[in-house]
Amino acid sequence: MTHRLVLATRNTHKVTELRAILAETGLDVELVGADAYPEIPDVKETGVTFAENALLKARALADATGLPAVADDSGLCVDVLGGAPGIFSARWAGRHGDDAANLALLLAQLGDIEDPHRAAHFACAAAFALPGGPERVAEGRLRGTLRHAPTGTGGFGYDPILQPDGDTRTCAELTPDEKNAISHRGKAFRALAAEIPGLLGG
Amino acid sequence: MTHRLVLATRNTHKVTELRAILAETGLDVELVGADAYPEIPDVKETGVTFAENALLKARALADATGLPAVADDSGLCVDVLGGAPGIFSARWAGRHGDDAANLALLLAQLGDIEDPHRAAHFACAAAFALPGGPERVAEGRLRGTLRHAPTGTGGFGYDPILQPDGDTRTCAELTPDEKNAISHRGKAFRALAAEIPGLLGG
Repeated sequence: MTHRLVLATRNTHKVTELRAILAETGLDVELVGADAYPEIPDVKETGVTFAENALLKARALADATGLPAVADDSGLCVDVLGGAPGIFSARWAGRHGDDAANLALLLAQLGDIEDPHRAAHFACAAAFALPGGPERVAEGRLRGTLRHAPTGTGGFGYDPILQPDGDTRTCAELTPDEKNAISHRGKAFRALAAEIPGLLGG
Repeated sequence: MTHRLVLATRNTHKVTELRAILAETGLDVELVGADAYPEIPDVKETGVTFAENALLKARALADATGLPAVADDSGLCVDVLGGAPGIFSARWAGRHGDDAANLALLLAQLGDIEDPHRAAHFACAAAFALPGGPERVAEGRLRGTLRHAPTGTGGFGYDPILQPDGDTRTCAELTPDEKNAISHRGKAFRALAAEIPGLLGG
């Protein structure tokens, strides 16, 4: 039986990416974006970790829709910034979701920082919640180095400036399949997907 | 004998503040801002700690002028940001020294963060260097909580949003004397000043 899962994001890039990741796991679900429920307000992300925010979003959406919900909270963690932007990645320049401004600000902030100190990683916490019921969270990371200028047109967010360890391209130069195979979001959602059948069947 | 000390900053607020702090220590020095040496270029702050950057600046200025030099690197460290803005405090919004933009950006980034998670501290590393000779660095901190909006017209930088622990005012509402008595910069330069006579006399 195909289960309907609501995804707690209005970011169409994320919906597309997650559909591809979950399709490969063989999980028999129909994924619906939060756009299908315009009457449900966005939850305030008051958590101070990726896992707290992902669980907040999945829990709120599951309880509001009566459907199983999945959510993620992801971001770029820069070593020399002590892990920031972190949970603030999507609003780094002050306004939520302005990818170009966020990326430009980060490059300006790190203008004087040379390559040995430009290590960073993408982090993702993926959460699943049943209405009124149990919840799970799984995490994934992708380590790399920050470029001094953006390269590539694929992906979204900070993809054009993170070069994964062991590669010579940025995340924005990878094909979607290549990216999903190594990405923080791919790892987190594959780990989460392994737990979902048991929770849906129980 | 009065020694001439060069201070590695063009920020007139800092020169004024440091004159007041050093005057109280009884140190017999004449403090000159880097403005008196317009031909000397600013050093690139490639360090990744306050101490590294303060020493870089003091060392470069001492060697370029042939005079004893003092420098500081200071910033605001926000717990929930892993210590950022930190060494990036003065260029947080991307352009060096735009206090209003830096402060507005930080408040926007922390918009969803509630009071229990708004702990922060000011940090200062104060460095002293003799031309071609020894160098010293001392550090100081001032702990507090970040307000949701700026209050007060004194001080500079992030003073209007940091409320020191044990006070009900922000740093921008303190008198200069009150601020210097408890501030990160006051603590760091008083510790440094205690070492300067020995180094100048040696």
